[in-house]
Amino acid sequence: MMEKTELVTRLKEIAGEGNVFTGTETEPFLSEPRGRWTGKAAAVVRPGTTEEVAAILKIASETGTPVVPQGGNTGLVGGQIPDMSGTAVILSTARLNRIRDIDPDGNTITVEAGVVLQAVQEAADAHDRLFPLSLGSQGSCQIGGNLSTNAGGTGALAHGVARDLCLGLEVVLPTGEILDDLNKLKKDNTGYNLRNLFIGAEGTLGVITAAVLKLFPKPAGRATAFVALPSPAEALALFARARGEAGNGLTAFELMARIGVEFSVRHIEGVRDPLGEHHPWYVLMEISSGQSEEDARGKLEAVLEYGLEDGLVLDAAIAESYAQHADFWRLREGMSESQKPEGGSIKHDISVPVDSVPDFLAEADKAVLAIEPGSRICAFGHLGDGNIHYNISQPVGADRKVFLQLAEVITPAVHGIVRAHGGSISAEHGIGQMKRAELAETKQPVALDLMRRIKKAFDPAGIMNPGKVL
Amino acid sequence: MMEKTELVTRLKEIAGEGNVFTGTETEPFLSEPRGRWTGKAAAVVRPGTTEEVAAILKIASETGTPVVPQGGNTGLVGGQIPDMSGTAVILSTARLNRIRDIDPDGNTITVEAGVVLQAVQEAADAHDRLFPLSLGSQGSCQIGGNLSTNAGGTGALAHGVARDLCLGLEVVLPTGEILDDLNKLKKDNTGYNLRNLFIGAEGTLGVITAAVLKLFPKPAGRATAFVALPSPAEALALFARARGEAGNGLTAFELMARIGVEFSVRHIEGVRDPLGEHHPWYVLMEISSGQSEEDARGKLEAVLEYGLEDGLVLDAAIAESYAQHADFWRLREGMSESQKPEGGSIKHDISVPVDSVPDFLAEADKAVLAIEPGSRICAFGHLGDGNIHYNISQPVGADRKVFLQLAEVITPAVHGIVRAHGGSISAEHGIGQMKRAELAETKQPVALDLMRRIKKAFDPAGIMNPGKVL
Repeated sequence: MMEKTELVTRLKEIAGEGNVFTGTETEPFLSEPRGRWTGKAAAVVRPGTTEEVAAILKIASETGTPVVPQGGNTGLVGGQIPDMSGTAVILSTARLNRIRDIDPDGNTITVEAGVVLQAVQEAADAHDRLFPLSLGSQGSCQIGGNLSTNAGGTGALAHGVARDLCLGLEVVLPTGEILDDLNKLKKDNTGYNLRNLFIGAEGTLGVITAAVLKLFPKPAGRATAFVALPSPAEALALFARARGEAGNGLTAFELMARIGVEFSVRHIEGVRDPLGEHHPWYVLMEISSGQSEEDARGKLEAVLEYGLEDGLVLDAAIAESYAQHADFWRLREGMSESQKPEGGSIKHDISVPVDSVPDFLAEADKAVLAIEPGSRICAFGHLGDGNIHYNISQPVGADRKVFLQLAEVITPAVHGIVRAHGGSISAEHGIGQMKRAELAETKQPVALDLMRRIKKAFDPAGIMNPGKVL
Repeated sequence: MMEKTELVTRLKEIAGEGNVFTGTETEPFLSEPRGRWTGKAAAVVRPGTTEEVAAILKIASETGTPVVPQGGNTGLVGGQIPDMSGTAVILSTARLNRIRDIDPDGNTITVEAGVVLQAVQEAADAHDRLFPLSLGSQGSCQIGGNLSTNAGGTGALAHGVARDLCLGLEVVLPTGEILDDLNKLKKDNTGYNLRNLFIGAEGTLGVITAAVLKLFPKPAGRATAFVALPSPAEALALFARARGEAGNGLTAFELMARIGVEFSVRHIEGVRDPLGEHHPWYVLMEISSGQSEEDARGKLEAVLEYGLEDGLVLDAAIAESYAQHADFWRLREGMSESQKPEGGSIKHDISVPVDSVPDFLAEADKAVLAIEPGSRICAFGHLGDGNIHYNISQPVGADRKVFLQLAEVITPAVHGIVRAHGGSISAEHGIGQMKRAELAETKQPVALDLMRRIKKAFDPAGIMNPGKVL
């Protein structure tokens, strides 16, 4: 390894004096918003071009310096945080923030890794197009991080996850070589699909520096309803009906337990319960139409009518204005944040086959309540993708720390039920540091072995985001 | 390498006496339908289970025996044909032909590699579902081959290529290990995406033995038109309009040059030109609706009306019955076969960004006609995917052999134009033997190097389909 002072000097030569941070300047990059992971770094460097990224990785490779890529620092599994050794360089993608090209006719946009998700959405919108990836953190997360973690979010139901929205990539390999695969093609069968290896690799195989993303026509109309239901089984039946009615026009179907609605109403400013009475479960349903507002509304009403007649739906409110639509969404989007003031929360980001969601919830609730009867289970998420954020808030008045220690029994119980349903213990957040040990224990050994072989083939020096995923 | 007789004995022990062929029995497996590639094999083995495949690959790995996986033997680039050394074992997937599971509620089907594509479509149909992959060879090609070559076809416009239709895979690695990734999940971020490496690897990284595929609701209605247009530019404008009107309901938009229609009418039994007069270009347009036949018809008529008013459309015929719909499709599907009786044909399976298709065609036509002025350019294909089968039939009365030698100048010229548009020289057929040298010459060296590293990591003994792709 190179002397730290020499390393810093060389980084400054590459990225400029003002773009290399050391000492206390590195602090904002060393821990993530929830404070669950903290690390140390020899330096933080903010390259401004792909070539600068390449030069940095070349030095890192030659000197055996670990490199931790970091986008908006919103990741939930510690993937963007270095270890405590203080040997790593954090490579911030914040200055790779140009929109290189937008092609509304071809329905593509080419952006650098550091462009904030919301800026991509807005650029698309300015050209009368939709970029459908949508996350709670969209105001600060960056597209490079979204791709590296294969982000999901609410838009995945109709348009897929980040992987599905990417046509081409530019990647700097650990050796400093630049892979230019920025293609705009819908069909290309010229050799192995490298793109999908880097997407979701959480920065362990290289640094994504730019991407060609798909754009879509903006819907002509949209209709949103906040729906009360007896249980997840009815929500699943309503989902099938809504999918049948609207097809790909069903653009959101978000399941929420009552307690999550209560948390959001209690703690998020301006959030109200759109329905007067208490109901056990809710769905935020959105239907979009390429034709008109009326078309979307008509389909939404048809689904609700069916649901009411068939006993699936207890009550429903339809958004009558954009403001109401935004209110419904704020309630849903506030669900993560509103858990904080309720004390400790043991969180799981799981997926199961869509039609297994009701069984999973029933079995997991039973297991959790057997361990801690006062647990407040705040399950919510993307029912149509089989992806539930199965979060458990501490009993009222319990000791936060003591409760959080229960994760050692609760999480294995929940994940065991997930696996029994053929599910995934990380549906959209990734592995990072958080689930690394569990991945090693539970993933099929053959799969792990192939991943390790790929890692070794791509990053023989082991400098790319060590200690993450594998 | 093992003695051939001992190898055959061990293969018979694994797969049974009747499922190992040698000598003249191997002939049907040694060349492909167009007769462009022929090879020799030590034996052909037809395993009946994944475990048998594993046992065969284990022996092959231990003895350094090359293994060439073969499905329906319909591939167009020689990927399924061994070399002339006679050392290879052809592993036919024909007996891996069980449908393991169909889950209409979850919209998935789990099939073994040897299930014929049409059988997957029919199984889906019997459960009121759609499996949208659709190819000319669907009556004989197998799903394992479709995935190994990442097949495209006419359904890709609305539902994507084979890669997009696959949720999970079972693969036997060259070492004989079985990778069980038969998951049904829409979201799973637990480590590197291995599935997309095997899809499109043309059997060079392992043998796909089973897959979980996505199903879709069957459309409630469908409307089909055969449309005449002045040029590809108008076709592109009409495509944009049709996409805007029908969104994902636009399920086919196939461009055809006049001469292709003439060939099909001349040589395919029962095919007629639906329009009386001669027109330079045609499009087969299909709109599907989740709601009703009337809805599909209404949208189709709206698109055509706009096209006629705006001068994009010269004439159009709408299918008034299922028989007419089938007639339109037979004309389109007959286009490949109908080129054979017209003499030698130099073929290119290319893609460019969708909005570059008209420029590509103009430039390529100019280049080809400069080389051989009498060339009859039969361009047709999936305009909405930017994927054109740019095939050139010999001049009338020309010498077949002499004309085919022009491929040495015509193909580089055409592919040069493709690359200038950021396109792909293999949009959907793959690399196989046919384009291996060109891939090595023209693919970015960094990408080739990564592919070689992956190949070496997965198949250190180099037994999997050697001489293909890389």
